[in-house]
Amino acid sequence: MSPTSETLTAERILEATEEVLRRHGPAKATVVDVARALGVSHGSVYRHFRTKAVLRGAVTKRWLDRTTADLTALAAEDHGPEDLLRAWLAALFEAKRRKAGDDPELFATYQVLTEENGEVVGAHIADLTDQLTQIVRTGVDSGEFAATDPAATARAVFHATARFHDPAYAPAWRQPDIEAQFEAVVELVVRGLRTR
Amino acid sequence: MSPTSETLTAERILEATEEVLRRHGPAKATVVDVARALGVSHGSVYRHFRTKAVLRGAVTKRWLDRTTADLTALAAEDHGPEDLLRAWLAALFEAKRRKAGDDPELFATYQVLTEENGEVVGAHIADLTDQLTQIVRTGVDSGEFAATDPAATARAVFHATARFHDPAYAPAWRQPDIEAQFEAVVELVVRGLRTR
Repeated sequence: MSPTSETLTAERILEATEEVLRRHGPAKATVVDVARALGVSHGSVYRHFRTKAVLRGAVTKRWLDRTTADLTALAAEDHGPEDLLRAWLAALFEAKRRKAGDDPELFATYQVLTEENGEVVGAHIADLTDQLTQIVRTGVDSGEFAATDPAATARAVFHATARFHDPAYAPAWRQPDIEAQFEAVVELVVRGLRTR
Repeated sequence: MSPTSETLTAERILEATEEVLRRHGPAKATVVDVARALGVSHGSVYRHFRTKAVLRGAVTKRWLDRTTADLTALAAEDHGPEDLLRAWLAALFEAKRRKAGDDPELFATYQVLTEENGEVVGAHIADLTDQLTQIVRTGVDSGEFAATDPAATARAVFHATARFHDPAYAPAWRQPDIEAQFEAVVELVVRGLRTR
């Protein structure tokens, strides 16, 4: 069965694009390479993604959304706000670290792509801080957390923990005491939120 | 009076090196350029700094030490631990922001130099976290701060505030609400330290 006998969906194009980026690197990957990998014409790819830039933005969004999806599932579980915050920050760190460690070349590729897709990254960060705002708000409602402006406090939590999710810190994630560093910052942040 | 009539001190060489780096950029600046700027032979420069790498390390240390000196003076003033911590973090942010904003080219030059001088940067960070440890310890002694391990807590404070001193975030320092972002993180950190 040739690849063309399957329906050409946006998702199949994005999968192939990631594979092409992995193989050729972000500088050399072209739409023609993607079309060739799928056994279709480049016109078929352009029918789904109008330009190469749009395709690169979409594949970046797909990569970032994979992190958000894990965390959304977690946020839906039944935890108290403090446990949920700890679990959420640990899951975010774990997801980023896994991406950086499991496939360093693909991670480096996406670091180039995120730099050229500021808007997609901005939307990703807004997604994450929205989830954090929801956790902070739940804690305020239950009387466990103090925050006059949950959105601003959530952003402060996101900034204070940047060392453990900002890809710029990926080299630090291999430090032998990185877990202890993470725990110490989370402890400081959780204590800062508590009404006590 | 020709420049050579002054005594050739290490400090004069470092001053000239910074000027040469500013003019030629980190890739092109040579020891011969430094010697020429001082009106001396390159041998005279090498008598103070054995190699070009040693000279580049020393000029990087001098640049970083300027930040530390301001903060050391502040730490000697008579403040309560919480006020001192707030003032220290604000002074660190201000010093870094001033360096980045006043002379962006020199700042970019030193970003290249710090990347090639990991040890010098490590010592600078150790200096800063030592000062923070002293502040945390004073707060623990006075009963205002809770910390079982002041050095670990100081490091957590340093990591939690990285957005406001790590040069990797220099582009974010121009955001219109960066002061509010800073205040929100400092508030979270100070609340996290308080015994209350």
